[in-house]
Amino acid sequence: IEARNSDLLVSLTQDLHEADLGDIIEALSPKDRSDFIELLGDSFDYTALVELDDSLRSKIVESLPNELVAEGISELDSDDAIVILEDLEEEDQAEILAALPAIDRLQLKRSLDYPEDSAGRLMQTDFIAVAPFWTVGQTIDYLRETTDLPDDFYQIFVIDPGHRLLGTISLDTLLRSRRPTRISEIQNEERHFVMVNQDQEEVSRLFERYDLLSTAVLDEGERLVGVITIDDVVDVIHEEAAEDIKRLGGVGDEEITDTVVATVMSRMPWLIVNLATAVIASQVIAFFDGTIAQMVALAVLMPIVASMGGNAATQTMTVAVRALATQDLDKFNMLRVVSREILVSIFNGIAFAIILGIIAAVWFSNIQLGYVMGAALVVNLFFAGLSGILIPVGLQKAGVDPAIASSVFITTVTDVVGFFSFLGLAGWWFGLM
Amino acid sequence: IEARNSDLLVSLTQDLHEADLGDIIEALSPKDRSDFIELLGDSFDYTALVELDDSLRSKIVESLPNELVAEGISELDSDDAIVILEDLEEEDQAEILAALPAIDRLQLKRSLDYPEDSAGRLMQTDFIAVAPFWTVGQTIDYLRETTDLPDDFYQIFVIDPGHRLLGTISLDTLLRSRRPTRISEIQNEERHFVMVNQDQEEVSRLFERYDLLSTAVLDEGERLVGVITIDDVVDVIHEEAAEDIKRLGGVGDEEITDTVVATVMSRMPWLIVNLATAVIASQVIAFFDGTIAQMVALAVLMPIVASMGGNAATQTMTVAVRALATQDLDKFNMLRVVSREILVSIFNGIAFAIILGIIAAVWFSNIQLGYVMGAALVVNLFFAGLSGILIPVGLQKAGVDPAIASSVFITTVTDVVGFFSFLGLAGWWFGLM
Repeated sequence: IEARNSDLLVSLTQDLHEADLGDIIEALSPKDRSDFIELLGDSFDYTALVELDDSLRSKIVESLPNELVAEGISELDSDDAIVILEDLEEEDQAEILAALPAIDRLQLKRSLDYPEDSAGRLMQTDFIAVAPFWTVGQTIDYLRETTDLPDDFYQIFVIDPGHRLLGTISLDTLLRSRRPTRISEIQNEERHFVMVNQDQEEVSRLFERYDLLSTAVLDEGERLVGVITIDDVVDVIHEEAAEDIKRLGGVGDEEITDTVVATVMSRMPWLIVNLATAVIASQVIAFFDGTIAQMVALAVLMPIVASMGGNAATQTMTVAVRALATQDLDKFNMLRVVSREILVSIFNGIAFAIILGIIAAVWFSNIQLGYVMGAALVVNLFFAGLSGILIPVGLQKAGVDPAIASSVFITTVTDVVGFFSFLGLAGWWFGLM
Repeated sequence: IEARNSDLLVSLTQDLHEADLGDIIEALSPKDRSDFIELLGDSFDYTALVELDDSLRSKIVESLPNELVAEGISELDSDDAIVILEDLEEEDQAEILAALPAIDRLQLKRSLDYPEDSAGRLMQTDFIAVAPFWTVGQTIDYLRETTDLPDDFYQIFVIDPGHRLLGTISLDTLLRSRRPTRISEIQNEERHFVMVNQDQEEVSRLFERYDLLSTAVLDEGERLVGVITIDDVVDVIHEEAAEDIKRLGGVGDEEITDTVVATVMSRMPWLIVNLATAVIASQVIAFFDGTIAQMVALAVLMPIVASMGGNAATQTMTVAVRALATQDLDKFNMLRVVSREILVSIFNGIAFAIILGIIAAVWFSNIQLGYVMGAALVVNLFFAGLSGILIPVGLQKAGVDPAIASSVFITTVTDVVGFFSFLGLAGWWFGLM
């Protein structure tokens, strides 16, 4: 297909949805991707680029001539154009902006001035606003006659001459009202809106909580400057959930399309942190090297104590991190949740102390070793439960994302407590210190 | 407030959004919750219950008299009613259904017959459908005159006399068209629809991919039976993401409102599995107990090798599980991704072999120990990378959710390989076998 037959390509891709077109681009070899877009020329729908991973998109856009990108972008809704522009280098960004019509350029520049991940970046600056003294009929006629409207809209905004938001009207209300009705009679007072600087995570929570379809975005002067629609929010929800999963797994913002070097760089810091905690845990073992030398069975059993603690703590932490992210865990139920975790960890501690105590006693034909194993497990699972809930909560209070940092601290606690309690108890019980 | 003053309560909660009302219920003590709803009586909005966690909701509904619930449910949209009904015991379900008007009862019964997590459960059975030969004017008049319409709607469906779906019209298209226009002229041929038995995860992917607001649900005979709207899908997306996070953390379907007993029961299986893998890893250590007895430094260092492997494998696994869930990892890019992971693991292996080799050599003033440590790390990180990508992919192929089972297998691999390579190499190198 890449025999530079652009007519054939155009006719083949004409009817495709942008998401499918995006998939085709992903499936192509890196070299063919920009050729593909250049061959399609005017018939390429730039919204397809919005569907791609960040790293892939910026690589493709950078390999395309800036004028071509400018032309493609000028046909997009402002929120999609921002997605394409925001990851580019300053120089390319400026060149593309310069090639755009003045009014688009100003709008996009203003949007790019808002912080990353803010409502201002997410919003679309084209929306439909009418005056409160219009009638339903006038509004419908206006919609019929104006051709340059946003592609899809779910709400009409009612504003005063100073661009301040007075209310909103959903399309079904508009359709169900008689033509002579005044807009001001059917408008909803809008209680849900966001400010341009608000974080996208807060925006998505508002949408989810109140089942919104779209919401007004206001600037500092409470003027209506844009609208955020649910399709953008669905992407945010996915992004935020993916972020939590990835942070818990210690892989930062990695995408499956990243290069080997980028992947190594993004995973390295986490492995270094893990190295540090592993060395700390090892120092606890080194402290008891005399004890181990006299009883090698301890070296065989100690990883079990640490690993059970690590797993129990991860379970508690997972629930806690998730509940903090969805704001299901707050000061009202904190006490209840913490005491539940403590009870669970005591119960699990006793249950597994019995099981593992028996295993240890039978394995090494040493009932005393069973007692020590059981006691160490009760201690470690108790600390596991406690740290599993208190560390994420504490990090959140300190303003750190619990998803990113909890597991490091927790593994350190359960390893150190696990090795210390088991080897310490054994040394004391058998008099091997 | 719980002084049984229902008038005061009614006036206080009157203007609250259902999500806020749901929060109030959660904050109340378990005993007060059903009293609160009974006191509110007719003025209680049952959609607030839909906002609660599953386990909390079913507990509350079970404590309420069935007639009261039936009355409350009869005012809800069918999809919300299903959410409340589906978790109840059969007996209560039947009693509540019996108290409903016949037409509602039939609709709800049919929806409950669809499998859990299917499109049929998610859909709303009230929708607006018109005939293709109607005009825009007729449709608008119909909307104005009919009072018993669904609360919110985003699309109008066009059907033939056999209830087969011909197309859809978005509200903005309807608003922008002249009154005499025939519906058949402006309808979109609907290319996106779901079947009643489709899984909700597939439904949410369709919505996300094509930025849908609502979609038609068809039965086996291709008749239009319902509509799924984006607000339900947003909940599904959240649920699915939460499910993945929880499964990776080994906590099943646990909610923060679960009781101690329920929590212990749901975490226990995972801890037992972990116990089994920990015992397997210990057996590897036991195999080398003679080696350790002659050189205790090995017992100190061996957890570092295992832990680095575990972390590196978790990183790879996290990316793989996430990419499989979002279908970003498929047969087209499998080879590329697997070779990337192998390269990354070789690179990380060499880098950390050098760092840890130096640490080990300096710590125990034994340069030979540094060589062994480094070599073991290269081996373990290589297997970590390989298992981190191949195990999730293999599980997915075998029809098992990779999120739920990957980490068990992976920890087993990295522990066994880590201990075996380090202790085995050391035993051979120093002649301690």
